[in-house]
Amino acid sequence: MSTTDAERRAMRRALELAASPGVPLGPNPRVGCVLLADDGTTVAEGFHRGAGTAHAEADALAQAGERARGTTAVVTLEPCNHTGRTGPCVRALLEAGVRRVVFAQSDTNPVAVGGAQTLREAGVEVEPGLLVDEARELNRTWTFAVEHGRPFVTWKLATTLDGRSAAADGTSRWVSSRAARLDTHRLRGLADTMLVGTGTVAVDDPALTVRDEHDVPLPRQPLRAVMGLRDLDPGRRVLDDRAETVLLRTRDPHEALAELRARDRQHVFLEGGPTLAAAFLRAGVVDEVVAYVAPMFLGAGLAAVADLGITTIADAFRPTVTDVAVLDPVEAGEQPNVRLTMTPAPTTATVQHNEES
Amino acid sequence: MSTTDAERRAMRRALELAASPGVPLGPNPRVGCVLLADDGTTVAEGFHRGAGTAHAEADALAQAGERARGTTAVVTLEPCNHTGRTGPCVRALLEAGVRRVVFAQSDTNPVAVGGAQTLREAGVEVEPGLLVDEARELNRTWTFAVEHGRPFVTWKLATTLDGRSAAADGTSRWVSSRAARLDTHRLRGLADTMLVGTGTVAVDDPALTVRDEHDVPLPRQPLRAVMGLRDLDPGRRVLDDRAETVLLRTRDPHEALAELRARDRQHVFLEGGPTLAAAFLRAGVVDEVVAYVAPMFLGAGLAAVADLGITTIADAFRPTVTDVAVLDPVEAGEQPNVRLTMTPAPTTATVQHNEES
Repeated sequence: MSTTDAERRAMRRALELAASPGVPLGPNPRVGCVLLADDGTTVAEGFHRGAGTAHAEADALAQAGERARGTTAVVTLEPCNHTGRTGPCVRALLEAGVRRVVFAQSDTNPVAVGGAQTLREAGVEVEPGLLVDEARELNRTWTFAVEHGRPFVTWKLATTLDGRSAAADGTSRWVSSRAARLDTHRLRGLADTMLVGTGTVAVDDPALTVRDEHDVPLPRQPLRAVMGLRDLDPGRRVLDDRAETVLLRTRDPHEALAELRARDRQHVFLEGGPTLAAAFLRAGVVDEVVAYVAPMFLGAGLAAVADLGITTIADAFRPTVTDVAVLDPVEAGEQPNVRLTMTPAPTTATVQHNEES
Repeated sequence: MSTTDAERRAMRRALELAASPGVPLGPNPRVGCVLLADDGTTVAEGFHRGAGTAHAEADALAQAGERARGTTAVVTLEPCNHTGRTGPCVRALLEAGVRRVVFAQSDTNPVAVGGAQTLREAGVEVEPGLLVDEARELNRTWTFAVEHGRPFVTWKLATTLDGRSAAADGTSRWVSSRAARLDTHRLRGLADTMLVGTGTVAVDDPALTVRDEHDVPLPRQPLRAVMGLRDLDPGRRVLDDRAETVLLRTRDPHEALAELRARDRQHVFLEGGPTLAAAFLRAGVVDEVVAYVAPMFLGAGLAAVADLGITTIADAFRPTVTDVAVLDPVEAGEQPNVRLTMTPAPTTATVQHNEES
């Protein structure tokens, strides 16, 4: 058994629907669904708009009504088998009389697993894996969190050419250009959690909100998480009402991530200081590194990352570069900054040249 | 009085001739010359091949022979007025009966100055300044050295994303990728002097030669200069016979550069350690910065630059970026490196956004 061209086209459409701008709100994956008639024409389309709203299958079924009977449901994620805030999609598909289900990504979320099996047992044809790579990429951090049992961690750092994130007196404003700062807010908006240590809150008093180019906070804000054993001074910006804030009473990255996963978090944007960054690196729980390099020298001051326990060049942490971008200035007098995006996947660099300098 | 289209075309050709690959050898500027007949056709071309060989004007005159009489000499640099290892070009032009001289850049070299004046007094039409910017750029470091009385200084550094040039144990091989190291040798070959401190020689024992992609030294090598008060251990690579080496017994950048200028040096490639780099930066004698950034973290180790006396972010050294290049790997398993080229010209950055983070 295999899939048809019409089903493949429908899956591409379902992926498009899933990626509709602005959805989903909350911890759920993006999902799209297309119902196809036997002749390959589209009967209805649907997508998920966020936690508490209809799943993509239910959305499409509602639009199809009686016309859903005998159709093929093409859906980007394996239909769920559990009853959460909405009923299980499997039951809805069976009740609507769908005769065949083609899906992309399997749902390994423990509470949802088993949809395909249940459908098969009820006599529905099930075809998994169509465009699975695209579907996984669409929900990259959700997939990661489900499969690893912890949120995906993006570590962001801003550094000078001499590896400083702040001057000797602690002043750190504008190490990065305005273009780099705007880009950072764009990336913050892709995560569901901001994470810093209590030390950063004490010293820098960051707002940790996502703001637009006019410095106005966006309507939807990630959770602000502060980890550490210190109490927070009242009046700190992170305690204002612009976004929810949680204090994680631990210094252990694993514990902090477990607490965040228990809150359905899937993507942590780590903007802590050098000590916190080093702790996450040492714990092996950095999944992406975004470094903004400013063409500036401080010659002293706060290092961008603390001691990693590396004593020799062979042990250097060498992430794999996935993207290099030059961020041109958006303000007069500023300089281009460089953004490097990296995955910590070990590189297989075999050093071949014992080159003298 | 002004210049003709034919003279402008001839000047472009003279600039091309001057930039012929591989010349000049030695401390002289690159110069090209075209002799034009009255009807704008080319009578002869010439260029300078390096110290001790004919100047561009003499080269062209020799090829023209008697046909030089009554021509216009179009030359990229003001004809010299002095007798060095070759006779003065002014006398050669007069003796050949050239009736008009169009040149680009004035020669402010004290020993050569006054060519235009002497020509005018002898009744030759003289037109200076045609394509002067191109001519100055062609001999960028020569022009700089003549006008500033010291060599142009390019400071090269290789750094990790956390601003380290070596690990805690001093191992520093392969902070940069092979592509970056090849690029460094290309840039070394554009300079006439390599400069490090005695400390770097003691610790790293660099060869300081320019080598090709097979690690073979090129036939022409820059002078190797080592500055500092320490004696050099015999057997150091820098003392081998692959290139000339000079020991400058000073820690003062100004003194070192004066000694090098006295040796006709025009372009110093500074590859010293963090202390030497900081000394040159503090002394205000870094004219170009070339930074290779490797996507790597050491978390500890030798800083790429030592304390610059900067204590607050407002005082950061913020050079102006002239070029950003991504150097793709040339070896399996390596990562792209980024090269930033900068001039230390003060930027007029007016920080307008007191943005919270």
